[in-house]
Amino acid sequence: MAEPVDLHVADLHPAVDDPALNSMNFLNEIAGHYPEAVSLAAGRPYEEFFDVAALHRHLDTFRRHLADDLGQSPAQVHRTLFQYGRTKGIVHHLVARNLAVDERISVDPEAIVVTVGCQEAMFLVLRALRAGPRDVLLAVTPTYVGLTGAARLLDLPVRPVAGGPAGVDLADLRAQVRRARAAGLRPRACYLMPDFANPSGTSIGLAERRRLLDLAGEEDLLLVEDNPYGLFPAGDVERLPTLKALDPARRVIYLGSFAKTVLPGARVGYVVADQRVAGSDGTVGLLADQLAKIKSMVTVNTSAVAQAVIGGALLEHGCSLVAATVRERAAYARNLRHLVDGLARRFPAGSPVRWTVPAGGFFVVVTVPFRVDDALLDRSAREYGVLWTPMAHFYDDSAPVDALRLSVSAVTPEQIDLGLDRLASLVADELARRDATAGVA
Amino acid sequence: MAEPVDLHVADLHPAVDDPALNSMNFLNEIAGHYPEAVSLAAGRPYEEFFDVAALHRHLDTFRRHLADDLGQSPAQVHRTLFQYGRTKGIVHHLVARNLAVDERISVDPEAIVVTVGCQEAMFLVLRALRAGPRDVLLAVTPTYVGLTGAARLLDLPVRPVAGGPAGVDLADLRAQVRRARAAGLRPRACYLMPDFANPSGTSIGLAERRRLLDLAGEEDLLLVEDNPYGLFPAGDVERLPTLKALDPARRVIYLGSFAKTVLPGARVGYVVADQRVAGSDGTVGLLADQLAKIKSMVTVNTSAVAQAVIGGALLEHGCSLVAATVRERAAYARNLRHLVDGLARRFPAGSPVRWTVPAGGFFVVVTVPFRVDDALLDRSAREYGVLWTPMAHFYDDSAPVDALRLSVSAVTPEQIDLGLDRLASLVADELARRDATAGVA
Repeated sequence: MAEPVDLHVADLHPAVDDPALNSMNFLNEIAGHYPEAVSLAAGRPYEEFFDVAALHRHLDTFRRHLADDLGQSPAQVHRTLFQYGRTKGIVHHLVARNLAVDERISVDPEAIVVTVGCQEAMFLVLRALRAGPRDVLLAVTPTYVGLTGAARLLDLPVRPVAGGPAGVDLADLRAQVRRARAAGLRPRACYLMPDFANPSGTSIGLAERRRLLDLAGEEDLLLVEDNPYGLFPAGDVERLPTLKALDPARRVIYLGSFAKTVLPGARVGYVVADQRVAGSDGTVGLLADQLAKIKSMVTVNTSAVAQAVIGGALLEHGCSLVAATVRERAAYARNLRHLVDGLARRFPAGSPVRWTVPAGGFFVVVTVPFRVDDALLDRSAREYGVLWTPMAHFYDDSAPVDALRLSVSAVTPEQIDLGLDRLASLVADELARRDATAGVA
Repeated sequence: MAEPVDLHVADLHPAVDDPALNSMNFLNEIAGHYPEAVSLAAGRPYEEFFDVAALHRHLDTFRRHLADDLGQSPAQVHRTLFQYGRTKGIVHHLVARNLAVDERISVDPEAIVVTVGCQEAMFLVLRALRAGPRDVLLAVTPTYVGLTGAARLLDLPVRPVAGGPAGVDLADLRAQVRRARAAGLRPRACYLMPDFANPSGTSIGLAERRRLLDLAGEEDLLLVEDNPYGLFPAGDVERLPTLKALDPARRVIYLGSFAKTVLPGARVGYVVADQRVAGSDGTVGLLADQLAKIKSMVTVNTSAVAQAVIGGALLEHGCSLVAATVRERAAYARNLRHLVDGLARRFPAGSPVRWTVPAGGFFVVVTVPFRVDDALLDRSAREYGVLWTPMAHFYDDSAPVDALRLSVSAVTPEQIDLGLDRLASLVADELARRDATAGVA
């Protein structure tokens, strides 16, 4: 008997049937189906350092801060923690301090909107910038799938800009801007991750950052800088200034996340939007205030309880996440070295396998001489017991891709070894199969 | 010197300059400007019963539940509380139990999506249902401004359906459905609050609920039932079954909130979406899973910390919010009686002032023989020291309205007395001014 049906997916917004949205689902599902597989797929942070006692402590630290530092009365503290609150958030001043301490970004706390993770920050920015059907977004490719998915939900086309080894191909960026404009379209911004990007792992050098900002000025383009991984260089290299730190002309909308540095379970991120917006009544305000209006109709405000946890964590380390993540940063750097060394051992000179050696972050891209798709991932999980992410998920077309992304953030060195052994078996078998097929042909 | 400008509001999505989004902002701002005024405007819950110790206790209760009741290992508990998590939430089973215990709604926990407050639930539903430019939403008027604002963000027109004393005018609903269809439009759903609606305070009777469901079946229309106030009848009356409890045909998408019953600061709500959706590949799934795909690109998932607080609160009361809110319900019922009695004393027989006597909830609508607008509210706050909400904010046009909404949820009986005295002065002065003007004319 046919199951009763109330709706058809064709009656819903087309995004729900889009590869960008189904991709995230597929990757989560496959991880759920093979819980015993070693996961070099998950980009989530290392969880061994999380601590239940810290949750309680952070809450109390923030509560005391409201009373002692901000001078709130007991009734005001109560209201801040428990009631509906300020749309732009209640830890904005601590976020501003963190940006000053760790990133030398100087920003008015009023230009910050605290959001439900960085994803909501992205969503609010895209909603604001997509004013009509002529608007398009540029994004350095390969692109974080959450950006593509959010754009789909808002009917905002995303046009790829070549990334390449420098992190962004400026000639291509300029060409894409001009091509879009020549087609009667309005490129609203270019989205990119200048530091240890997801998924490519590449970083943009300092000189190139300056040239990018110059280009943005010349072409009158906004840049959306997403920086979830900047705190995680692999060695004792000096961290580069963010685009936002180099941006007196307010070309950059900066997206931040506490998921990788404090706690994904809090779901707290933010956007710095200090652009000055002229209203229809002639007044001039901040883009942050326009984003807050949008936020008030998406989630009203970010959970005060969750913000309190993040606020407490910041306060306990003088608002420095560099200070707060000493153990995490060491673990990620060690894992990244371990993975790269492990690849070199398993795929010695002469092997057709290639990989990136990023200067930091969570991700290494491995290129192989065969197509890497969801079917191969499924087989890798089932038969070899190792999970990774097909790079095809990060390209907004269906062209075949011969690369996969490995993540080092949620594993131990032992798990990396085990995962790489299994990956090497898969690759060897695929190469043998390819050679056998070539022999037959 | 002119201030530098980076963007113009006309370059942003038109919603940011829409009255529906500016309305919420204006009302918040005026409350901020006159903190000493008695607020009969705020619809937020009574905060005296909130308790910091309870936050910690709820967290611990939920943590123990994960281990003891769900059998999670310490590592799994860790992951559930701290990591990225299930898109549809981690307290869905407790929400389902709550709906069974308090509302006699029997629903598969998999059909529930836990959201960042009810606002996100609303937003996800509207995003899913707005598939193209022919789609429109119907909403019983006067309408909660958060619904109108969310629809604006999604370019989804909202067409009003008369509410009237019965809570919904079924003849008008049918007429609006047919009118929209005759105009080539597709009415996707009708939004309404059957219990003690915001802002009207009206409730729909049991017979009318059944007729509404029949009509939805006949006209092939979904109903979006929003129920933030159902738990708060003013006296010892029996609560009516929700539409969802009367809905074997899955016509109803049900929106729930813990903001009024547990804690606004957690920002946790949910949607029950058990409609069966046929996919493009022929498989049949739940609407909840389509909403989850959308959610994954808006907020990823709802803060685990915030969900844990709500989960703990539910567990401590056998998942019954009726049991959890004994003190709150008594306070709201007392306040509502006090307000209605106070109106009767201040505006005796012969007065042109009229008001509703709702059977529960937070809101009373007062009708006066003069126009009630934002200018009057500003004067009321500045000169009389009392805040309320112009009913004009709940109508999606700019027609003059002669009514205001009073809320009893965040005040004491003493504050109600003081607020009503001040309101009575304002009304007396307005009537005198009107008479004086009439005398001159």
